[in-house]
Amino acid sequence: MTLADLRREAAVPRAGTATALDILKQRFGERLSTGADVRRSHGHTTTYIPNQMPDAVLFAANEEDVQAAVLVCHEHRCPIVAFGTGSSLEGHVNAPQGGLSLDLSRMDRILQLNPQDFDVTVEPGVTREALNAQLRDTGLFFPIDPGANASLGGMAATRASGTNAVRYGTMRDNVIGLTAVMADGRIVRTARRAKKTAAGYDLTRLLVGSEGTLGIITKLNLKLYGIPDTILSGVCPFPDVRSACDAVIQTVQAGIPVARIELLDQLAIEASIRYSRIDLPRSPCLFVELHGSSTSVAEQAEFFEAIAGENGGGPFKSSTTTEERARLWKARHDFYWASLTLRPGAQAIATDVCVPVSSLSDCIAETQVDIADCGMIAPIVGHVGDGNFHVTLLLDRENPAEIEAAEGFIARLSKRALAFDGTCTGEHGIGQGKRGYLADELGEALFVMRQIKETLDPRNILNPGKIFIEP
Amino acid sequence: MTLADLRREAAVPRAGTATALDILKQRFGERLSTGADVRRSHGHTTTYIPNQMPDAVLFAANEEDVQAAVLVCHEHRCPIVAFGTGSSLEGHVNAPQGGLSLDLSRMDRILQLNPQDFDVTVEPGVTREALNAQLRDTGLFFPIDPGANASLGGMAATRASGTNAVRYGTMRDNVIGLTAVMADGRIVRTARRAKKTAAGYDLTRLLVGSEGTLGIITKLNLKLYGIPDTILSGVCPFPDVRSACDAVIQTVQAGIPVARIELLDQLAIEASIRYSRIDLPRSPCLFVELHGSSTSVAEQAEFFEAIAGENGGGPFKSSTTTEERARLWKARHDFYWASLTLRPGAQAIATDVCVPVSSLSDCIAETQVDIADCGMIAPIVGHVGDGNFHVTLLLDRENPAEIEAAEGFIARLSKRALAFDGTCTGEHGIGQGKRGYLADELGEALFVMRQIKETLDPRNILNPGKIFIEP
Repeated sequence: MTLADLRREAAVPRAGTATALDILKQRFGERLSTGADVRRSHGHTTTYIPNQMPDAVLFAANEEDVQAAVLVCHEHRCPIVAFGTGSSLEGHVNAPQGGLSLDLSRMDRILQLNPQDFDVTVEPGVTREALNAQLRDTGLFFPIDPGANASLGGMAATRASGTNAVRYGTMRDNVIGLTAVMADGRIVRTARRAKKTAAGYDLTRLLVGSEGTLGIITKLNLKLYGIPDTILSGVCPFPDVRSACDAVIQTVQAGIPVARIELLDQLAIEASIRYSRIDLPRSPCLFVELHGSSTSVAEQAEFFEAIAGENGGGPFKSSTTTEERARLWKARHDFYWASLTLRPGAQAIATDVCVPVSSLSDCIAETQVDIADCGMIAPIVGHVGDGNFHVTLLLDRENPAEIEAAEGFIARLSKRALAFDGTCTGEHGIGQGKRGYLADELGEALFVMRQIKETLDPRNILNPGKIFIEP
Repeated sequence: MTLADLRREAAVPRAGTATALDILKQRFGERLSTGADVRRSHGHTTTYIPNQMPDAVLFAANEEDVQAAVLVCHEHRCPIVAFGTGSSLEGHVNAPQGGLSLDLSRMDRILQLNPQDFDVTVEPGVTREALNAQLRDTGLFFPIDPGANASLGGMAATRASGTNAVRYGTMRDNVIGLTAVMADGRIVRTARRAKKTAAGYDLTRLLVGSEGTLGIITKLNLKLYGIPDTILSGVCPFPDVRSACDAVIQTVQAGIPVARIELLDQLAIEASIRYSRIDLPRSPCLFVELHGSSTSVAEQAEFFEAIAGENGGGPFKSSTTTEERARLWKARHDFYWASLTLRPGAQAIATDVCVPVSSLSDCIAETQVDIADCGMIAPIVGHVGDGNFHVTLLLDRENPAEIEAAEGFIARLSKRALAFDGTCTGEHGIGQGKRGYLADELGEALFVMRQIKETLDPRNILNPGKIFIEP
C-alpha cells in the first residue's frame, strides 16, 4: 500500500453526502463550516500522506450534537470522521471519500473528578495538557504522553501511548470506560466506574484503538495516578546503540519500575544538542525517569547506574529539580523540531514499530544498516522499555524518488518487526498509512475485524478507508 | 433471572446434535465419552445452579482436534462448551441446550518460554499452579490467582483476577495475545509478542472475558513477572469493617503498591481460626502482602502500619519467611472450607460485586445490614484494594425457601453495586447466574454485545445460554 495506491484508491462517491450536509447546515448553521481553509486543516497535515479534506466540518458542542450528526449521516450514508487536534501520523483524519469531519475540540469539559477513586470523566476534546493543568492542585496526574498535546478522545481512539507507557501502560490500560455514539446513533456506555469487571464483552478495549471506525467517543472515564513524591530524571551515555539497548533489556528484566526510558541514537543526540542547546554527551544516550519515594528512587537510580556500567555506559547524570527535569523532557519532546536541523528544508516523518524487548538491539541494528544503505538521514528515538522505536526520516516531500525510497524503507521496517514477532505499529496506529501491513501481521484476525466493522457499521460511514483497505 | 427462570428456560432441542456426535465418535473413538458420570462432572458442580450436563465430552489433544470439533458442530448446529477445570461459579460450563463439552485439560503443554521477554505461550489446559511449578527455576512467576487451581484458558475466558489483581491486574492485563478457534472453524491469532501494539481492533481483550461464546482459546501468550526480592505478608486487625475499608482506601490513595490486601470480616476470621487453626485477632482483619526490594518493602510496611493506626487498626504483625506467608495465604485460600464450619451440612455459595473503592465501606455496610435482616449466615471476604468483595452464603440447597432468599439477596446486592456505579460481578463473570443483571448494568451496550455475538457465531453454537438471556 504505497502513496501511489492511496492516490489510485477510487474515492467512492457518496450520493447522499450533499443531502446530509444540507440537513446538517439547517440544524447547525454557522457551526457547520465549508470554508476551504477549515476543511483543509481538518484533513491530514502531519506527514507526506496527501491531504484529503472533508466536504464540511461540524463543530460539535455536546453528545446530542454528535448523535444528531451521526443519525443524519447514517440515513444518507455520508462519511463521518471524528477530529480532535489532528496530530495523528497515519492519515486517520483524512476524508478519502469526502463527507463530514466532526470536530470534537469544543467538547472540552471535565465532567466529574473523583479524587478518592483516582478517576475522572472528561469529554473527548479535553487535551492531555489541559487535563493535567486542571488536576494540578489535586496531587493527581494523567500519565499518558504521546508527545503532541493531543485530545484524550483521539488518544483513546488511536490507542496512544508514549514516553511513560513503560510504567503506566497505554490508553488501553487507562480508560476505565467510555461512552460512544455508534453508527446507528445508539449511545453506548461500555462500563461503569468499578476498577475491574467481569460483566460481558470488553467493549471499552474494542473501541480504544478502533480509530473512529466503530463509534465516536463522547465521554471518557480515565485512571489517574498520585504525583510521585520524588521524580528523578537523567541522561546516561553509551558507547553504541546496542549497549544502550542491552542496558534497557536488563533494566526491565531486573524489575526496576522505570517511568521513562528513552533511547536517542547519535544523530538524535546531535540534533538535540544543536536545537535545544542542552549539554549532552555526544554518543547514544538513554533519557531515564524514575518515580517513587526518595528512598525508592535513590535505590532505583543506583541499580540502573550499575546495569549501565556493566554495559559500558555511564555516568548517569541526574537531577530531581523541576527545572532540570523540564529542560530534559522539553528537549526530548522537541526532538521533532531538532531533527529538522539535520537537513534544513526537509520534512521529518516519524514511523514506528514495536518488537519483543529481547529483539530490540537486533532490530535497531538491522534498521541502522538499512538506513545507511539507503543513504537516508534518519535518527532513531524510542520508547525502548516497551521495545517500541521511531525512525524519523528527513525527506524532501516534493521529491517522488525520496518518497518512494521512504515507502520502501517503511515496508522493510514493518516486515523486519514482524520477523521478530513484533507489530508494524506500537503506537501510531494503522490509519491509511499502514493498512498494507495488517494482513501480514494478523492473518485471519483481520477477517474477524472486518466482520465486526461490517456489523457495527454496515453502511461504512465511520471513518471509511482507515484500518481496512476498501474492497 | 432466578433459578426458577433457569429451569423454565426451554432447552431448545438441537436437531443436529446426534449427527454431530456420531461423526465425532467416528473420528475420536474413546476420546469422546458419553458416560453419565463424565457428562455430569462436565456440567456445573460448584454452586446451587443446577447441573445441566452435555450429551458428550470430547477430550481434545491439540488445536487440530478443537478445529475439527468446531467444524462438525458448526455444520450441524451442535452446542459446544469449552471446559477447563470446571471451577467457575456462575454456570459457565453448563450445557442447557445439550451438545458437546470440549475438555481442554489435556492440552497442557508449555509451548514457548521467553525468559528475556517475560512471556510464555501455553496451551489452555495448563493450570496456574502447573505453570508456576514449571517456572520455579527461572525466577519468574505468573501472578493471577483466583483461588482455585483453574486452567489458564478458563481464567482468560472468564477474565479471572483474585487476590493480587490490585498489583498485577487481571487476565485482561496479562494476556498479550491468544489464538482461538472461531465458530466457523477459523483459527485466529489476535496479536504478536510485542508488549504493545496499535494495529487494529483489540481482539485479545474481546476474547478475554467472552466466556467461550465467541471462540475457543487454544493458545495463550501470557506476561510473566520477576519474583520479588522480598515478600512480606501480615495481618492487621481493625475494630470494625468500616475502619478496615477506610484504611484500604487510604493505602490505595497513598500509592503504596500493595500486592494483596484482603478483607476478612469478623465471621470470616472466626471461621478461619476454627478451620485453619491459625492465630488471628478476633476482629475484622486485613491480610496484606508487599513485594519489592527489602528497603522498599520495609518502607511500604511502615507506611501501611501508620495508615492502619490512624484508622484504629493494628498492630500489623508480619513476616517474610516462606512458612509464615504460606500459612497465612493457605488460610485465606481455605476460606471456602472454613466457612462451612459456620453451619455444618450447609453449602457455601460465593457471589461477588465490585464498586469504586471510595464506596466500598458504604456498600459493605449496607450489605451487612441486609444479611442481618435476612437472618443469613454470610461472611464477607474481599479483594478490597480493587473495591471487589465476596459474600459467602451458607445455605441448605435442598431448602427452596433458602435458595429463594439467597436469590433475592444477590439481586439486591447487584442492584446496590450498580447504585454505587459498580458492577454486578468483579471477577466471577456472568455465565448463567448473572444474566439478569446485565441489562441494568450496561443498557445499550448489551445490544452491541449481542450484535458481535450474532455476527461471529450466527448459529449460536459457542456456549449458548451464557451472558445473554436466550430470546
